[in-house]
Amino acid sequence: MKTLSENRCFYGTQGVYTHASSATGTDMTFGLYLPPDAADGPVPLLWFLSGLTCTHENAMTKAGAQAYAAEAGIALCFPDTSPRGERVADDDAYDLGQGAGFYVDATEAPWAPHFNMWHYVGTELPALLAKHFPIDPDRQGITGHSMGGHGALTLGMGLPGRFRSVSAFAPICHPSDSDWGRKQLTAYLGADTAKWAPHDATLLMRETGLDAPLLIDTGTADQFGDLLKTEALAEAIATRRQPAQLRLQKGYDHSYFFISTFVPDHVAFHAEALWS
Amino acid sequence: MKTLSENRCFYGTQGVYTHASSATGTDMTFGLYLPPDAADGPVPLLWFLSGLTCTHENAMTKAGAQAYAAEAGIALCFPDTSPRGERVADDDAYDLGQGAGFYVDATEAPWAPHFNMWHYVGTELPALLAKHFPIDPDRQGITGHSMGGHGALTLGMGLPGRFRSVSAFAPICHPSDSDWGRKQLTAYLGADTAKWAPHDATLLMRETGLDAPLLIDTGTADQFGDLLKTEALAEAIATRRQPAQLRLQKGYDHSYFFISTFVPDHVAFHAEALWS
Repeated sequence: MKTLSENRCFYGTQGVYTHASSATGTDMTFGLYLPPDAADGPVPLLWFLSGLTCTHENAMTKAGAQAYAAEAGIALCFPDTSPRGERVADDDAYDLGQGAGFYVDATEAPWAPHFNMWHYVGTELPALLAKHFPIDPDRQGITGHSMGGHGALTLGMGLPGRFRSVSAFAPICHPSDSDWGRKQLTAYLGADTAKWAPHDATLLMRETGLDAPLLIDTGTADQFGDLLKTEALAEAIATRRQPAQLRLQKGYDHSYFFISTFVPDHVAFHAEALWS
Repeated sequence: MKTLSENRCFYGTQGVYTHASSATGTDMTFGLYLPPDAADGPVPLLWFLSGLTCTHENAMTKAGAQAYAAEAGIALCFPDTSPRGERVADDDAYDLGQGAGFYVDATEAPWAPHFNMWHYVGTELPALLAKHFPIDPDRQGITGHSMGGHGALTLGMGLPGRFRSVSAFAPICHPSDSDWGRKQLTAYLGADTAKWAPHDATLLMRETGLDAPLLIDTGTADQFGDLLKTEALAEAIATRRQPAQLRLQKGYDHSYFFISTFVPDHVAFHAEALWS
């Protein structure tokens, strides 16, 4: 593991690190914020999974979460959204290939060799963090935006017991019924839709639910609202009687201005679960 | 109008009054809490509509709202849930007739002469309050529980511009698709389901939505959860992108213990809208 940068930030440290990943077969870069409390011992960890076209850097620089994580004594990890590099498959579309890993382990050519973001975010990177940083692996929460919200919800339900709290900003809620999902799940996992089910938050909510508190914010003016299929997950949450808060935030769109507005609520939500 | 009782309560006054109603053709009793600020001039008004079997008294004595309304400077009105009396039609079932007005104006025999709770709560009682008490009619909010939550949602959407804020505790969300609704709407309005639509919150949400902020709390352990059809309204809210908070509260049931737990949040929610 190599340190690319470390910056003092709200009395803690915002670092950027790179390492050779066995999951993706590439070098992977991630951001990690350690709050001041980490100097005294292990702290809880909140994952922030980013959306289409993002790297590790977008949320790290634009979501404004460090201010609240510092106060709450919580570390933040910002993984990349896919493997990258010249020998890694890609597509001209912004929503497939590099920058669009969709948090699945691909089984189909040409994606299978490198596109294993489920394993990377779910197994490899947590182990790496626990080994090298003062992180308490028993206290993890997860959030994310858009495609990263999809990742947060599917990892949250797909890895029972792992996360004490799950939240999402404008998540893709039902990819198997959306143009943000069908194309990518077909490309990465093949045409057999049964293999998509573990990567569809609405289907997971209908089948298994979530064993942790849940908070979702989505803007009523989200320009991608039709692609998110919030209504399908809303129905599934209510049908299941899943403890949850679903908030439709008036006038907010899909941008980081939306995210940063509600980041304080989300960090507080996770802090309550992670410190209790 | 006759005063049945007035009690000092959180430095304000909890009154109970009765009057001859033209809407119902009966005497109607209601509770009205005036906060201490009402001594200095008109205050905003929050309606609390009650559920099946309740009178004006249940929420007035068990919801615990006066403490917060006193602090927020908001009046509370607790209407009865139906006309009552020996010459008023009734049914042996707890969920039809007296105590079960469903906030509609009945058109069918034997209910039509007296069961006009839509007109009573929507028109007659507000005018009476504005005439006799220091209430600001331009600042009204509405909430309710169960059948009363149904009333709050349907009056909220059915009288655009009337209420600055709408909330509900465990509301009946989709009565035309529930055993808490089909029987009553058939009895009061007849078998033509087109006439039910203005009294079904899910259908109203799909068609017109709400021009005010909305907060709904329902317990995940609600023993009547299957009758509420929360999932239908959840889907309709998300499909419409209606600004709203829908909270599924872990482990809470349908009781006043549930209501009183979240009454502080609801009064604060209304206070923000009513005083802004």
